[in-house]
Amino acid sequence: MKKWVYFFGAGKAEGDGEWRDLLGGKGAGLAEMTKIGLPVPAGFTISTEACDYFYKHGKRYPPELKKQVLDNVKKLEKATGKKLGDPKSPLLVSVRSGSARSMPGMMETILNLGLNDKSVDGLAKATNNERFAYDAYRRFVQMYSTVVMGMSKEDLEHRLRDMKKRLGVKNDTEVPASGWKELVAEYKQYFQEKSGSAFPDDPMEQLWGAIGAVFGSWMAEKAVTYRRVEKITGLLGTAVNVVQMVFGNTGDNSGTGVCFTRDPSSGEKIFYGDYLPNAQGEDVVAGIRTPVHLTELKKLMPKAYAQLEKVRVKLEGHYKDMQDMEFTIEEGKLYMLQTRTGKRTPAAAFKIAMDMANEKLITKEDAVMRIKPEDIERLFYPVIDSKLDKKALEARILARGIDAVPGAAVGKVCFSAAEAEEWAKRGDKVILVRRETSPEDVGGMAVAQGILTATGGKTSHAAVVARGWGKCCIVGAETLDIDYKTKQMTESKSGKVVKEGEWLTLDGSEGVVYAGQLALVTPQLPKAYETVMSWADGIRSLRVRTNADTPQDARKAIEFGAEGIGLCRTEHMFFTDFEQPEKSHERQRAIQEMIVAEDREARVRALDKLLPFQRRDFIGIFKAMDGFPVTIRLIDPPLHEFVPHEHAKQAELARELGIPVETVARRVEQLHEANPMLGHRGCRLSITYPEILEMQVRAIIEAAIECQKAKVKVLPEIMIPLTLDKKELGILEQATRRVADDLIQKAGVKLPYLVGTMIELPRAALLANEIAEVAEFFSFGTNDLTQTTMGLSRDDAGRFLPDYVDEKKAGVFAGDPFQTLDTKGVGMLIRWGIENGRKTRPKLKVGICGEHGGDADSVKFCHQAGMDYVSASPFRVPISRLAAAQAAVEARQRAAKAKGKRR
Amino acid sequence: MKKWVYFFGAGKAEGDGEWRDLLGGKGAGLAEMTKIGLPVPAGFTISTEACDYFYKHGKRYPPELKKQVLDNVKKLEKATGKKLGDPKSPLLVSVRSGSARSMPGMMETILNLGLNDKSVDGLAKATNNERFAYDAYRRFVQMYSTVVMGMSKEDLEHRLRDMKKRLGVKNDTEVPASGWKELVAEYKQYFQEKSGSAFPDDPMEQLWGAIGAVFGSWMAEKAVTYRRVEKITGLLGTAVNVVQMVFGNTGDNSGTGVCFTRDPSSGEKIFYGDYLPNAQGEDVVAGIRTPVHLTELKKLMPKAYAQLEKVRVKLEGHYKDMQDMEFTIEEGKLYMLQTRTGKRTPAAAFKIAMDMANEKLITKEDAVMRIKPEDIERLFYPVIDSKLDKKALEARILARGIDAVPGAAVGKVCFSAAEAEEWAKRGDKVILVRRETSPEDVGGMAVAQGILTATGGKTSHAAVVARGWGKCCIVGAETLDIDYKTKQMTESKSGKVVKEGEWLTLDGSEGVVYAGQLALVTPQLPKAYETVMSWADGIRSLRVRTNADTPQDARKAIEFGAEGIGLCRTEHMFFTDFEQPEKSHERQRAIQEMIVAEDREARVRALDKLLPFQRRDFIGIFKAMDGFPVTIRLIDPPLHEFVPHEHAKQAELARELGIPVETVARRVEQLHEANPMLGHRGCRLSITYPEILEMQVRAIIEAAIECQKAKVKVLPEIMIPLTLDKKELGILEQATRRVADDLIQKAGVKLPYLVGTMIELPRAALLANEIAEVAEFFSFGTNDLTQTTMGLSRDDAGRFLPDYVDEKKAGVFAGDPFQTLDTKGVGMLIRWGIENGRKTRPKLKVGICGEHGGDADSVKFCHQAGMDYVSASPFRVPISRLAAAQAAVEARQRAAKAKGKRR
Repeated sequence: MKKWVYFFGAGKAEGDGEWRDLLGGKGAGLAEMTKIGLPVPAGFTISTEACDYFYKHGKRYPPELKKQVLDNVKKLEKATGKKLGDPKSPLLVSVRSGSARSMPGMMETILNLGLNDKSVDGLAKATNNERFAYDAYRRFVQMYSTVVMGMSKEDLEHRLRDMKKRLGVKNDTEVPASGWKELVAEYKQYFQEKSGSAFPDDPMEQLWGAIGAVFGSWMAEKAVTYRRVEKITGLLGTAVNVVQMVFGNTGDNSGTGVCFTRDPSSGEKIFYGDYLPNAQGEDVVAGIRTPVHLTELKKLMPKAYAQLEKVRVKLEGHYKDMQDMEFTIEEGKLYMLQTRTGKRTPAAAFKIAMDMANEKLITKEDAVMRIKPEDIERLFYPVIDSKLDKKALEARILARGIDAVPGAAVGKVCFSAAEAEEWAKRGDKVILVRRETSPEDVGGMAVAQGILTATGGKTSHAAVVARGWGKCCIVGAETLDIDYKTKQMTESKSGKVVKEGEWLTLDGSEGVVYAGQLALVTPQLPKAYETVMSWADGIRSLRVRTNADTPQDARKAIEFGAEGIGLCRTEHMFFTDFEQPEKSHERQRAIQEMIVAEDREARVRALDKLLPFQRRDFIGIFKAMDGFPVTIRLIDPPLHEFVPHEHAKQAELARELGIPVETVARRVEQLHEANPMLGHRGCRLSITYPEILEMQVRAIIEAAIECQKAKVKVLPEIMIPLTLDKKELGILEQATRRVADDLIQKAGVKLPYLVGTMIELPRAALLANEIAEVAEFFSFGTNDLTQTTMGLSRDDAGRFLPDYVDEKKAGVFAGDPFQTLDTKGVGMLIRWGIENGRKTRPKLKVGICGEHGGDADSVKFCHQAGMDYVSASPFRVPISRLAAAQAAVEARQRAAKAKGKRR
Repeated sequence: MKKWVYFFGAGKAEGDGEWRDLLGGKGAGLAEMTKIGLPVPAGFTISTEACDYFYKHGKRYPPELKKQVLDNVKKLEKATGKKLGDPKSPLLVSVRSGSARSMPGMMETILNLGLNDKSVDGLAKATNNERFAYDAYRRFVQMYSTVVMGMSKEDLEHRLRDMKKRLGVKNDTEVPASGWKELVAEYKQYFQEKSGSAFPDDPMEQLWGAIGAVFGSWMAEKAVTYRRVEKITGLLGTAVNVVQMVFGNTGDNSGTGVCFTRDPSSGEKIFYGDYLPNAQGEDVVAGIRTPVHLTELKKLMPKAYAQLEKVRVKLEGHYKDMQDMEFTIEEGKLYMLQTRTGKRTPAAAFKIAMDMANEKLITKEDAVMRIKPEDIERLFYPVIDSKLDKKALEARILARGIDAVPGAAVGKVCFSAAEAEEWAKRGDKVILVRRETSPEDVGGMAVAQGILTATGGKTSHAAVVARGWGKCCIVGAETLDIDYKTKQMTESKSGKVVKEGEWLTLDGSEGVVYAGQLALVTPQLPKAYETVMSWADGIRSLRVRTNADTPQDARKAIEFGAEGIGLCRTEHMFFTDFEQPEKSHERQRAIQEMIVAEDREARVRALDKLLPFQRRDFIGIFKAMDGFPVTIRLIDPPLHEFVPHEHAKQAELARELGIPVETVARRVEQLHEANPMLGHRGCRLSITYPEILEMQVRAIIEAAIECQKAKVKVLPEIMIPLTLDKKELGILEQATRRVADDLIQKAGVKLPYLVGTMIELPRAALLANEIAEVAEFFSFGTNDLTQTTMGLSRDDAGRFLPDYVDEKKAGVFAGDPFQTLDTKGVGMLIRWGIENGRKTRPKLKVGICGEHGGDADSVKFCHQAGMDYVSASPFRVPISRLAAAQAAVEARQRAAKAKGKRR
């Protein structure tokens, strides 16, 4: 006969703590706690399989269930020495749902089941508290009527209010026993009117009603929606836990509390929790009375406290993780009602993981697995002071956008990058606000405290650049109507106007824009961070590099643990001189002169001006990366990004270059493209203008030679972007080697360097076997590869991608494919590319340099796909290091599992 | 001993006509003609293997070659009864190159070899013509000096001019024997000065010099370049043909000519050719004297003519194709010097193929294989009258662009689509000239004679729409600077200005724009066309559908042999009412009203106005396609294409809709996208605005039901564009079926219909197995699939793609991938998609509806990949029908070959 019901009590349990799928989280926890000898009220759990059967058979129970429940009720009566409905000292039970995954507040609970007109008197006598007994009774009738029978809560509450009015009292606590008695009668009459039959007196009838209600709540609309939104799938249903009631509200010798085995805020190994004397769990939740600290319990009831302290040690030792527990003390006796893994702050997560590993409670691998990658990010950035009043904060909200880079920032609104630079020079804190940003704005972005744009998504220019710097950034705040002329913006829903110079606070972690100047705090980096991360580094096999374009970024990334540069975008150097900002203009003019030039000679002249700048930047980067490889990508963006589009700026450029403004305007017009993402960019520029490649390779190799002479270990990797064909790549590879080998030979040095390519077009991935004949390494540019594989422009997808990700709308994707790699589609191309590339060149070095290199799930995919390294923006390097270690552990676990070993 | 030299003469040949690779085209032809008993001067061929050896061994001859050449010279002397250098009646030979592939003018020839101071007298005596002999001698010395020794042609010509001046004569023909004698002496002296040694008198020495020169010419820069440009690869080298000289210029009993076995212009089975009495082949080429028609030869030399007539029959019967032959008559005796397959006009190609099949000379399959797909296209379109003076034409050229749609057109320049419609209404012929076109311009494009744009490539909007109509179109004429304000354009190189209303002639076949009004002629469609095409239809298995958006196009396509519609773009219907042009405005306003609407209700109201229009169009299309399937694509382009971007038009729209112009302007601004190709378009619109899909499905199904009631056989196939995921497609498929099934049920009819998708994103192709769970058919949208797979915007690629295709620059691709499918990259995805789609759904219907469906090579790929049909624009349907038949024949031939059978 199939077993549907599992008993626990008196130190024994038919269930097991591992059987979450069968017993639900609560049932498994109760069974486990019982087994390890903790004081748990006895009870039994109807399995999730019964719920599954129920729904698969037209809401009928399994035939064997009735007898099994009856048997278990008898067992429970025996264990507790009480009987359901006993007019002397009745057994009362709670009936609660509990599925394998926590679904807080989504399903039903019925307390005090077993009360009727007779047993209530027994309860009154047994507790010597008539008021308590009738209060419990009216609560049960109310719960049963609403939860099981679906009657109106409002109708019942209404009667309670009327009664209190009649009695002239305000609070429930003032209602005497007679009042509750009266209310029970009224409730029962209401029940009779509504249902046409009397309120069930028989406790077994009550129990079956409650079981049915719990099963029914599994398919209630709110529960179904919750599971869909939270992406909870694969569950059989809910279990039903029938447990002896214990009462914390029988007098001062009773009480209830919640505690953590360690401090969930700091992670310190101290006993932490709240206790409310003479109260039930519901009262703690309702927040009517203020609980006292756990240390008070020690004073009030030293024996019970000592018992709880033992439970703490036992549970943590058993579960090997910080536990969040609920308990009740009834007449001095401790009962454990629930235990689960406790939530904690990011800092606490590190501290607890480190301490537990040091205590040998867990392994270092376990410690690494305990950290969530997003915890790391939250360690670094300043945040809005959490002490600020929440309602006041709410009122300050100006607009919402996309949380592009976390952290918070405060500054004065400035709508122009150039002015932002001026303001910053004179010491002002600036928030740069733009419709969208372009490489021209990089200088202003660099000096701003935070960046806010009205358009774009998480991989728009603003987001990508800001992320590289770990600078707070909100993009796609589409309700902001920005007017550059009048220098103000209007929030289109509220009509609120913010003018240039006014204060603004950005919460980049939440994507919220606040008007005014809010207080910020920067969290302290916990010491445990360094320890756990060093363990992670010892575990991972995937290397972690960084995307860095300047010596400053490179140094920053080294601090964050980067092991080289996976993507150095040379074009940012065309616009900004981070070491000598006064030279930025000179750089810009040189690249612009190159673009408007009419022939190769004139282009070469202009490029010669850029050469020393690029060389200087490369020297700085090589020095910062001494001993680590540096992958430098040759020019990538379309040229129109480098030229001014406004007439005034074009005129200025023309004046400085001594050419007619029409020439500049015509050239800019010529550069306009319908789809610049698919246009004249990447290595296509070097095919058309080989002189650009020649200058860049010269700058790289000259810098490398100079560094080498200064005893810096240089490992340059020259990367050709947007390749789509072996022949195309071959032409550029040859051109690269011609310049490089010539310089190396003339310098009389030995300088190993690699020439490789980005794989960012489907065709390149498809033909990886051919491309690997030329390329010494592949770097998957997954931003563009995602754009082309999915036909999604990351700059435009903000308009409809939210619908695609929103489970309630289309729900096509689990997440934004520009944040977390589409492992199914794009991932298929990546796996194909790696596999076929290595067929041609077994030692092909493979990495990733898209935004996904800093996303934990994507990093794990990269490990699985067999990459050698990932590259992330400096602030995300620690995330990638951790994720890489977790991927390695998971792979080992999978391998062990596959071998049939137990963990 | 390896054989390097192959003799032919006196009816026997060591070589064979099939050995083109070994003997070159000329050598193989001479051997073959000799073998079948035609009068061919004797000679021998040094094989291409010898040339290959030559280059592989540091330009040394194979050791055996010397003896083999000597032996063959002796054999030749024996066959001709003459001896090289004989002072009485010397043997003279020509030494010519000849590789397996024709490379006209690229390699060297030396004539009259064997002459020296002694033998020239022998020749004079033998021919009784001293002037002829010395003329031949000086020609030989001149050729030898320049070709073999590389001396200056100019220096020698200079001496010739001086001599004529001295003699006071103008033409070479007036120079007496003494003049030539004098010149020979001068040439030899020049030779001595330049080379330091005497001109070689020994004929064998002359011969080796000539052989070396021919081998050397194989690697001359111009020949190497020619092979690269023409993509001639895999050849061993050139052969050297040493052939007895025969002379057509020995008197009136001699002559030379070129003839075709059938009329290359009409294809008529008549003997066609030119004859020049008393002349050498060179004279015909030089064009100094006008040749007479072959019929004259019949009168002049009836015997030789009769002999030639026999050769004609023999050669055609032998080669089974129309031959282009060269012959010389020396003293009444006919010699055949060359034969090759003759070039012909498109009309002749059909006529000849049909006639030969009817004559049982070839099979019907052969006949189908004889037609080049591009021949078909040239049959249909008007062309500029070929009788016009070429120099005058040249002077009229205003600009050059990309030959988007062939044919020619004449009209008055108009820079606005709206005005073009007005002008056309009043009877003017218009050439619509735009920077680029958009769907707003379709009305103006429809009435124009031809379309010219300054930007865009062969798959730009203008090109695609014009091709659908078979309307002459030139795009990407980038030197044209168009000013809409002043209504004029300036050609930037010449500075020429063309104003509105001036005449323009377009040659769409060549991409040339002429100023002024040129005469056009429309070729007559040959009767053979229908016959051969019906044979093609009998052979092919691939179905051919058409891309048609209007009932007119649909009817046109049926005339061209379409078997259904593979792509009906519903959005064109939003802009133009082809049956009731006065209704176009109403349609436009309805779609624009929908776009600016603020909520679903308002959108539905606007869509309700469009519904009757779409339904009427579909009824027309279904009727035209009675019994054939019609694939209708739901809305695809981004909405910004439907709204006005100029302020005046926005104001007009706002006025008509009764809303503020700011609302319109804001909405248009909102719709702007950085990369519209990858933006909010395709089925993404139907995810956001399901009401658009609902209206369109309603229009389709209501039209289908109405047609069915009128006994029209309707087979609607509803196609969802730009799918990237099964779930996305599933949502829209369900929405489609809900509307359709409801209508069908209410109408109480049975109406089978299909729901399928376009595969135009790499992700969709990669996940074809999943997508086929939902889709009943796949239609590969190869325009967009090419764009995304290669990361190439077809609107922008014009800037750099030419470099990629140009063999002299990068030469990455053999052709424009938007014209001929990139079978390697994009093709890999297509094959993957078909294979995996059919794994899920074995009967999955698969077609192609990109521009490639009308490209012969791409159609052949589609056949190989196992597609069910291709879809082409109406005018290209015949090309696809032919290509599909050829693909079937080729597949059979390959299969037969694989079985080891002989053809």
